Amino acid sequence: MATLKRSPLAPEKFPKMHPLSGVRLTALKAGIKYKGRDDLLMVRLASGSSVAGVFTQSTTASAPVQWSQTIAKRGKARAILINSGNANTFTGPQGHADVKATAAMAGRVARCKPSEVLIASTGVIGEPLPIDRIDRALSRVNSRSRSASWLQAAKAIGTTDTYPKGATCQVDIAGTPVRLCGIAKGSGMIAPDMATMLAFVFTDANIPPRVLDELLREGVSGSFNSITVDSDTSTSDSLILAATGQAGNPLPKSKSDPSLKEFRRTLKSLLTDLAIQVVRDGEGASKFITVDVTGSNSTANARKAALSVANSPLVKTAIAGEDANWGRVVMAVGKSGAPLNQKKLCVSIGGVVIARSGGRVFGYDERQVASHLRGTEISIEVDLGVGRSRARVWTCDLTHDYISINADYRT
Amino acid sequence: MATLKRSPLAPEKFPKMHPLSGVRLTALKAGIKYKGRDDLLMVRLASGSSVAGVFTQSTTASAPVQWSQTIAKRGKARAILINSGNANTFTGPQGHADVKATAAMAGRVARCKPSEVLIASTGVIGEPLPIDRIDRALSRVNSRSRSASWLQAAKAIGTTDTYPKGATCQVDIAGTPVRLCGIAKGSGMIAPDMATMLAFVFTDANIPPRVLDELLREGVSGSFNSITVDSDTSTSDSLILAATGQAGNPLPKSKSDPSLKEFRRTLKSLLTDLAIQVVRDGEGASKFITVDVTGSNSTANARKAALSVANSPLVKTAIAGEDANWGRVVMAVGKSGAPLNQKKLCVSIGGVVIARSGGRVFGYDERQVASHLRGTEISIEVDLGVGRSRARVWTCDLTHDYISINADYRT
Repeated sequence: MATLKRSPLAPEKFPKMHPLSGVRLTALKAGIKYKGRDDLLMVRLASGSSVAGVFTQSTTASAPVQWSQTIAKRGKARAILINSGNANTFTGPQGHADVKATAAMAGRVARCKPSEVLIASTGVIGEPLPIDRIDRALSRVNSRSRSASWLQAAKAIGTTDTYPKGATCQVDIAGTPVRLCGIAKGSGMIAPDMATMLAFVFTDANIPPRVLDELLREGVSGSFNSITVDSDTSTSDSLILAATGQAGNPLPKSKSDPSLKEFRRTLKSLLTDLAIQVVRDGEGASKFITVDVTGSNSTANARKAALSVANSPLVKTAIAGEDANWGRVVMAVGKSGAPLNQKKLCVSIGGVVIARSGGRVFGYDERQVASHLRGTEISIEVDLGVGRSRARVWTCDLTHDYISINADYRT
Repeated sequence: MATLKRSPLAPEKFPKMHPLSGVRLTALKAGIKYKGRDDLLMVRLASGSSVAGVFTQSTTASAPVQWSQTIAKRGKARAILINSGNANTFTGPQGHADVKATAAMAGRVARCKPSEVLIASTGVIGEPLPIDRIDRALSRVNSRSRSASWLQAAKAIGTTDTYPKGATCQVDIAGTPVRLCGIAKGSGMIAPDMATMLAFVFTDANIPPRVLDELLREGVSGSFNSITVDSDTSTSDSLILAATGQAGNPLPKSKSDPSLKEFRRTLKSLLTDLAIQVVRDGEGASKFITVDVTGSNSTANARKAALSVANSPLVKTAIAGEDANWGRVVMAVGKSGAPLNQKKLCVSIGGVVIARSGGRVFGYDERQVASHLRGTEISIEVDLGVGRSRARVWTCDLTHDYISINADYRT
């Protein structure tokens, strides 16, 4: 497919990543689908590394997802093999055999058992994975192979992404400095429940698998589970968190261990950063939209209403057209089924209250709203008027470019 | 807004409608939003007419919907006043007062009580209804006013519709010939639960309100509740069925009355005809898509899976691009949550089985599928492999024109 132009919502540049001990990256050109670019990423993890994962809830989850779920549950891994261009989804018994075969290939490189290799694939659905190409690429890896940078790694896992996505930070656990580095890909077929796309977050912190799993599940709800591009949930969504333990901090006993307080906060914000970068690369996106629902009778209902607004094609096209069509926002919360009081319902765009107490605010500052909509960072707030619960969801607009990208993806 | 070009999926012409006794149509130019065209339809019903209605399930239902629900429940009406260009939705207490006022105006013309007037409005949300213009238009109606044809009536209620929608048929009840005539509008913000858009079906049959209500509810599930254009549910969806009794057939006692057998079948097929006409005028539609889900463990789950396919932006853009991207169909049933057996899942496009038993069928006739996709009548079939229940849903593709129409609707 043609090279897409960089999203207008892209961050200025890829961050300068902290060095992270216990992770070795190798980017390879396997020629799975794309030519002349890296499309295979081999990640080797230090001995003793803990892992945790959350995956798509689709009932047609890919073979790699099914494989990695089992491994993540055991909490230990030595390698992650990630390819772009082919999702190895709905490929029947062959797909499962192919996952097993590639895990064995990666295991030979990482000198570990296949059952210590996580696999993630993304790309076209239903095409058999060309494992011979993966084998050839991996056989070129040896002790002298050059390590890839985080930037190269982020590029290798991309598909229709228009920019590489990374985030990094440093924090203390019980006085020991630890680092976090994450990369992500994905710009279409993005909707929560769970995760979305592929994301890999690494830390050199020393954290046991059970605690790592708790931390990941806590972190995902307000980040990757709160974004949507087009309401379509991928069959390949995987988010892996790996901890190499090289920083040598004292082992925390549980998620609530006081020594983890800063780490938890930092992990959440790093996951949110990556999730937002995914939305900002939404296929065809020209505006980044934050939907805040307040005044709900439960967090679940607030979230339901927020997602209904964020997924509404009519809301998304109105924003694309820079049209303050708040009536469509009313429609979208109305169809969500989330309880609301129409007489108290309140809608704001760009901080300007446009509708209140069941009707339009006469004389609201239309110019301010119009000017807000001409920008790229759009805010929609809805108060349902029936409680105190709230939810925030991020999305992007629906444009001609989304149609162009998706009406000829395979050709 | 600019005049839209006629949908390529439109029927050849508006049907020649059967004459129907007890219904008098008057089409008026009120200038509510559109200029130089009829935008107000006054329907007068013979004394003693029965009515039934089904309405949007949105929690932000419009003032006219809330009004008409009450009247339809009573089962008797003498008039229906329908305007296009303004939905009178989310217009606060003024909106409710305006409905009451227009019902009184229509009541003066029809010489009935306001509580015998059904109201339906469609168009922009959140703008106050210009009732003075409606009043002026209605005051021009007198005994010499020309009756409108069904075609004129269908045109008067349209908004972004690119063609008028009508259906008609004749059938016997206990040896007495009765006639049915229906009109509908709506081409965006179309999704089930319930109804969708505006539709008005009239018969000269003699049917009591309770039976009429049963017949309507039975007829709507496989018709207006099985279509979707963009997954957005309108705040104004109303479907009214009125029976004038002028045909003089013996009164049926219940829906199951043997004399109604033919009538039930005919009503269902007329409602389906109108519903399909609405989808064929889906905003920007270039392909009409029938989604059949079979092998489900329940009708509800079959329907859930079918709607998930029909509402998936990625499926709809693939069809727009004439791309046999069946992987997106797998994704869409996967995200629906409907139980399925991935090892038995079967996907066909245009009658050609592309995927079976959890994987692609190698050597399937790609040329036949490609040729099917170049046509305008697209068929997608999915067998979930876990039961014998089925559902059918109709939708259209998602094109550049949808974006163009909706990104500048208000401007």
